[in-house]
Amino acid sequence: MKKTYKAAVIGSGSGGLTMAIGLAGFGHDIALIEAGKVGGDCTNVGCVPSKALLHAAAAGLDAPFDYVRAKRDELNEREDEEMVEHEQIDLIRGYGRLTTQSDPHVVEVTAQDGSVTEIVAEHVIISAGSRAVEFPIDGLDPARLLTNETLFELTEVPATIVLIGGGAISLEMATAFRDLGSNVEIVELQERLMGNDDPVVATTIRAALEARGVRVHTGTSIERFDGTTAHLANGVTIADVDKVLMAVGRRSRHQDLGLEAAGVETYERGIVADSWGKTNVDKIWAVGDVTGNTLTTHGANSIARRCIRAIALPLPTVGEPRVQANAVYSRPEIASVGITIEELDALPQSGRRRYVKQLADVDRGYTEDFEHGVVVVDAERFSGKILRAAIVAPAAGEMIGIFTMAIDHGIGLRKMFGQVHPYPSYSQAIGQIADEFATETYRSLPKEWWAMVRGRVMKRFVRS
Amino acid sequence: MKKTYKAAVIGSGSGGLTMAIGLAGFGHDIALIEAGKVGGDCTNVGCVPSKALLHAAAAGLDAPFDYVRAKRDELNEREDEEMVEHEQIDLIRGYGRLTTQSDPHVVEVTAQDGSVTEIVAEHVIISAGSRAVEFPIDGLDPARLLTNETLFELTEVPATIVLIGGGAISLEMATAFRDLGSNVEIVELQERLMGNDDPVVATTIRAALEARGVRVHTGTSIERFDGTTAHLANGVTIADVDKVLMAVGRRSRHQDLGLEAAGVETYERGIVADSWGKTNVDKIWAVGDVTGNTLTTHGANSIARRCIRAIALPLPTVGEPRVQANAVYSRPEIASVGITIEELDALPQSGRRRYVKQLADVDRGYTEDFEHGVVVVDAERFSGKILRAAIVAPAAGEMIGIFTMAIDHGIGLRKMFGQVHPYPSYSQAIGQIADEFATETYRSLPKEWWAMVRGRVMKRFVRS
Repeated sequence: MKKTYKAAVIGSGSGGLTMAIGLAGFGHDIALIEAGKVGGDCTNVGCVPSKALLHAAAAGLDAPFDYVRAKRDELNEREDEEMVEHEQIDLIRGYGRLTTQSDPHVVEVTAQDGSVTEIVAEHVIISAGSRAVEFPIDGLDPARLLTNETLFELTEVPATIVLIGGGAISLEMATAFRDLGSNVEIVELQERLMGNDDPVVATTIRAALEARGVRVHTGTSIERFDGTTAHLANGVTIADVDKVLMAVGRRSRHQDLGLEAAGVETYERGIVADSWGKTNVDKIWAVGDVTGNTLTTHGANSIARRCIRAIALPLPTVGEPRVQANAVYSRPEIASVGITIEELDALPQSGRRRYVKQLADVDRGYTEDFEHGVVVVDAERFSGKILRAAIVAPAAGEMIGIFTMAIDHGIGLRKMFGQVHPYPSYSQAIGQIADEFATETYRSLPKEWWAMVRGRVMKRFVRS
Repeated sequence: MKKTYKAAVIGSGSGGLTMAIGLAGFGHDIALIEAGKVGGDCTNVGCVPSKALLHAAAAGLDAPFDYVRAKRDELNEREDEEMVEHEQIDLIRGYGRLTTQSDPHVVEVTAQDGSVTEIVAEHVIISAGSRAVEFPIDGLDPARLLTNETLFELTEVPATIVLIGGGAISLEMATAFRDLGSNVEIVELQERLMGNDDPVVATTIRAALEARGVRVHTGTSIERFDGTTAHLANGVTIADVDKVLMAVGRRSRHQDLGLEAAGVETYERGIVADSWGKTNVDKIWAVGDVTGNTLTTHGANSIARRCIRAIALPLPTVGEPRVQANAVYSRPEIASVGITIEELDALPQSGRRRYVKQLADVDRGYTEDFEHGVVVVDAERFSGKILRAAIVAPAAGEMIGIFTMAIDHGIGLRKMFGQVHPYPSYSQAIGQIADEFATETYRSLPKEWWAMVRGRVMKRFVRS
């Protein structure tokens, strides 16, 4: 009789690895199905090689792409080996596809040689991830086109690289390729970079990148290529383009997974799943990019942990997930946490307060001549509860943790008032924002009291 | 009749400026007495020039010392101008000294030309700061000796600089001068660097500095100089020494302030004052370095804010001060918060748990080949309450804020478990520590559950 696994996990990225290892930790037998490389996008074509390239470029390493591939391959090999050797996990190489709605579920795996295996499992977890959105560009030589899947195969630094899109991947690669010496041109259809983030963030990171020589074209697109010349819709031309990176967004890999046969509900961004990974079909779960709920490694990991708990422990599935910050490892970094900018805009102005603190106006910004950085906090008008925080700063990805903790534990600006931040840290901007909130809201104290809370250098700039 | 000020503030550093501006904000007339430069050590010979030098050195600026002096002077001039122009504040240049215990208090100010003025004030705030401890070294040419007061007058990069002491100033200057190309030798009498910090921190920062070519001599001292050769007590010699920076600690400037006449109690580290700045004499207050309670700019600012409240507002002086982190802006940075290492060592081992997470073992450390960094957390055994946290990391001064907030609001590792840190940030080490605490303490869950919480790369290193 055929073996019935506790779970079949389709995809071995951040979500899938967490699921497989977590469930296996309970002694369950797991089938981990992977059509590509173990580790998924993060290890192979995402976070790991991109952060390695950022480091190699900033550090001026001699062979930056070799460094990137060495880091990527070493991690992939170890993760692969770990899965192969794991006693509770069977790594099955091939393309997984649901067949029927039967319980236990049957997953059909097609190997590269075309052979088909049937996997029977009590639970199926779909963590198939996402891929770069691509569209054709008239006249563009396909040899010049890159996505995140081919980018890290480069062996030479392109003299000129065009980045299509103005989101996380584009801004990180703009940083890296500028450090490597490329001419970098960003072309973004929307009117601003980081379209999902705060307009203040967009303005700030644009200024930072432009100050380093990155050229940014917003509100336009590439109409066509004429040889190596890109013609933009706004009339601008970019000559001698070596490479074009398509980084306009991610599309869930939920096609051709047999979801219809299994009756799993989908929407335009992927599989419909809740914050425990539950789909509409019993014992079929979905976590990570494939759900469109999160597009980050830490997001997939966080939801996978909840999904493991839901499957393996006899605990009720109640409680909201922890808030998940986003981070972009451009220079300066960008990070944000809380409700989306759309959700924020939908709230009445009268119910909230906005604080924008330029980092050039805190003392560390002064000593370091740091021009383009900012902390933006939107808070409830009376309670000071943090609705959203966004940071552009050298270590924004580390600084954001204070706001993540504040939101997780209901600590608003009122309670943050008085927190002592080391001098001279960029985080002092956070303290100054809490000071401003207190100034505006502690009605019982005389206004004059608050003269003392301004920063030393801030005042300087205000006066000059 | 002579004018009676609401307060006479002796010293215009971080504590004094905060006091003067804060009390003036209430409409009070303030006499601000300064024998040196407005802004005190921080602006003129401390934080500001040292951070400017760190930046100039790391950025490879052409004339690093010119940059430092320009930053320092610009800030000093603006702070000076601000005090001169302030309607409620009279800036009185000279050396202030208490005379009698009378109320209102009388402060005698001796100007540089020897003229003496008497200032009468209801309150006196002593914020006279501290100075570098100095001791003679046999055979050392005085022209080669530097302290923080003369260091930033350098015009050329010394080929070889010896830093006496292994604390904050020494480690920051080791970082800067190494970047500038100097041979840097640290000589520290204690057996380790950062004697007041965690031994793990000491080992980590030492390794980081040594990897960059800084030579560290601990458990020894300079016995004598023979020309430009330093002879250490352990037999080591350092040849061709250009400059020697004395950075062995700070001594409170509480001598010759007329404290005896006024009956103000002192101890070996300065004026005895509580966390509101209260001394034993009514309406005589002391804040900042001069009390020995804090030796940081943010510490003086924090206590000064409490002191302003105590003087200006009819509120009871109850409540503990917020916890104050320390930060050292070496590369990597060092930061710590919570009880001291001595207080920690005095607690029974059975009541606490210690977590040490090497940053080479988190994914960002892997992608950046970051070798020498660590997060150390000591927590109460059962509650997970943070007793002390110490970080050595690229942005430790920003990362420490999570722990400051955690201590301020009683958030222990149990509550920190589940916080989602951006991937791949160094702060993920904090999440992994919370995971470990949860693994050890959630007895109701099967051990196996916790297999899932280990980091991806961490496991790799554990296995290899």
